[in-house]
Amino acid sequence: MKKFMNAAEDFVHDMIEGVYRANKDKLEYVPEYNILYRKDIPEDKVVIMQGSGSGHEPAHIMCVGKGMLDAACPGNVFAAPPMDYVYECTKRVANKAGVLHIVNNYQGDRMSWDMAKEMAEADGITIKTLIVNDDVSVQDSLYTVGRRGVAGNFFVIKCCAAAAERGKNLDEVLAIGERVNSQVRSMGMALTSCIPPAKGTPIFEIGDDEIEIGIGIHGEPGRRRDKIKPAKDIVEEMFEAIYTDLPFAKGDRVAVMVNGMGGTPISELYLLFNEVAKKCEEKGLTIVREYVGNYCTSLEMEGFSLTLLKLDAEMEELLADPAEIPIHVF
Amino acid sequence: MKKFMNAAEDFVHDMIEGVYRANKDKLEYVPEYNILYRKDIPEDKVVIMQGSGSGHEPAHIMCVGKGMLDAACPGNVFAAPPMDYVYECTKRVANKAGVLHIVNNYQGDRMSWDMAKEMAEADGITIKTLIVNDDVSVQDSLYTVGRRGVAGNFFVIKCCAAAAERGKNLDEVLAIGERVNSQVRSMGMALTSCIPPAKGTPIFEIGDDEIEIGIGIHGEPGRRRDKIKPAKDIVEEMFEAIYTDLPFAKGDRVAVMVNGMGGTPISELYLLFNEVAKKCEEKGLTIVREYVGNYCTSLEMEGFSLTLLKLDAEMEELLADPAEIPIHVF
Repeated sequence: MKKFMNAAEDFVHDMIEGVYRANKDKLEYVPEYNILYRKDIPEDKVVIMQGSGSGHEPAHIMCVGKGMLDAACPGNVFAAPPMDYVYECTKRVANKAGVLHIVNNYQGDRMSWDMAKEMAEADGITIKTLIVNDDVSVQDSLYTVGRRGVAGNFFVIKCCAAAAERGKNLDEVLAIGERVNSQVRSMGMALTSCIPPAKGTPIFEIGDDEIEIGIGIHGEPGRRRDKIKPAKDIVEEMFEAIYTDLPFAKGDRVAVMVNGMGGTPISELYLLFNEVAKKCEEKGLTIVREYVGNYCTSLEMEGFSLTLLKLDAEMEELLADPAEIPIHVF
Repeated sequence: MKKFMNAAEDFVHDMIEGVYRANKDKLEYVPEYNILYRKDIPEDKVVIMQGSGSGHEPAHIMCVGKGMLDAACPGNVFAAPPMDYVYECTKRVANKAGVLHIVNNYQGDRMSWDMAKEMAEADGITIKTLIVNDDVSVQDSLYTVGRRGVAGNFFVIKCCAAAAERGKNLDEVLAIGERVNSQVRSMGMALTSCIPPAKGTPIFEIGDDEIEIGIGIHGEPGRRRDKIKPAKDIVEEMFEAIYTDLPFAKGDRVAVMVNGMGGTPISELYLLFNEVAKKCEEKGLTIVREYVGNYCTSLEMEGFSLTLLKLDAEMEELLADPAEIPIHVF
């Protein structure tokens, strides 16, 4: 295993500390609980929180900022945050407008967040929970009852956060998030496995000419194995699976995300986007916004996921709102 | 070889077409010459151009936009753009304010750009050339006389482009770029080799526990091989090489770039940045701006480069100016 780290047990801490060091003016960091939160959360704005396993960066520890998450409390790599992390985080950021917990649908995460919610509610904090489950690949999975939550999560966060910044109340923000989740669909695939730092070996074996269609972001099995094939054929299969699931229809306005799994160069992601854009044209979908890059990764896995969100007028406005994240581009 | 592509010979075209499809409102694309350029280049603003081999994305084809490049004309993967691409691109974007060619120091690139410059000058176009050579790893290299140009290129482009947007003339923009180039230093290293699409095999062999310190972005040999070691020790070696080269000194204000080589997850890049920030603190350098992500890559290579730029007041202002690039983040 070759990875940039000091020791496997310090991987998550050292990474979060890096994000914090780059953003000390805007963020607070509580190392004992892996908590990163905004210094300037308004008292009257609904608070948006998330925390899941680490290893999916920039989701979600690198998404704390005005117009995105107010706080994040990740667990170790591919491990849900312990309930006391979530509880502690909730207590630190709660205000009178209430807190929205956005939770990706994995049983480990749900257990931590459910219990933390109970504990925080006992302290008088108002909390609503929103479950994200956008992955069409499989029904039930290794760590999930129902569908898994993957990159569609970003659209949920962005719309909820923008609505909260616009002054919507907790029920309204929850309703928007639920609408986004109901209209977003994703599917992933992999060329290679990643290697979790503490494990030191790949989480699954895959041949030099094989791909896994419908992979999960923790290496959960997908729909099937196939031989490597042209990008347009891979996109064709995934696009059809997503398109028919909602289903999308001619005339829909959509946001499209081509999400790298961590080890895929951006050249290949734009090449894939090109094929996705052709499919949208063929189907009569109008791409209103496109997102091409690494959003919800699986460490250094080579692969990508495709996400389509069917937009309405409000979502279009919310996605276009400004967001300050702790990652510079230029 | 597992890559997202349709055919190796279409790799560059399909990727650029993807960038174009995502930005049809702002960019023009000329497929015969791999040219991407801004629709709205002002008539009285110095034009900023670059083009080198493909495979280093987002450098530089994904950096065409207001406040960054006005035009890019890359060659094939790891191949300089042919002189007629550069000539054609120059003709299409030239205006009365003149054109700045920013060229990374590789002999193949220099030949194309020199000849294209002569051809365009014969047409009455005013051109200045700026050579970027920020890599401290080795003096002379496989494809280079002198030092190689790598990720420091971004600071040169950003400052030149911002100065041009502010209305500086060609000589002034060139002078700023030369000052940035004289004060920026980089060094790269790799855990793995990449595989160029047309070659289909790695460009170099490296052991499962080996790293190459001082690697070039086309796999050119670096200073030495070593065994994989803790991130802080890798950073220590590279930081010292860069720090002593300028040399930097206590009290300097700097911009820092931790640049992924394409296959390195952003979690590891922030972990590396954390170590770099500690070194800066130890040396008494103030980090004014940090850049952590993929800027100048080598396809899917796992590795990173470190860049430090010693800032002056003008550079600080120019780096903070807005830039519109064809890549969404949120």
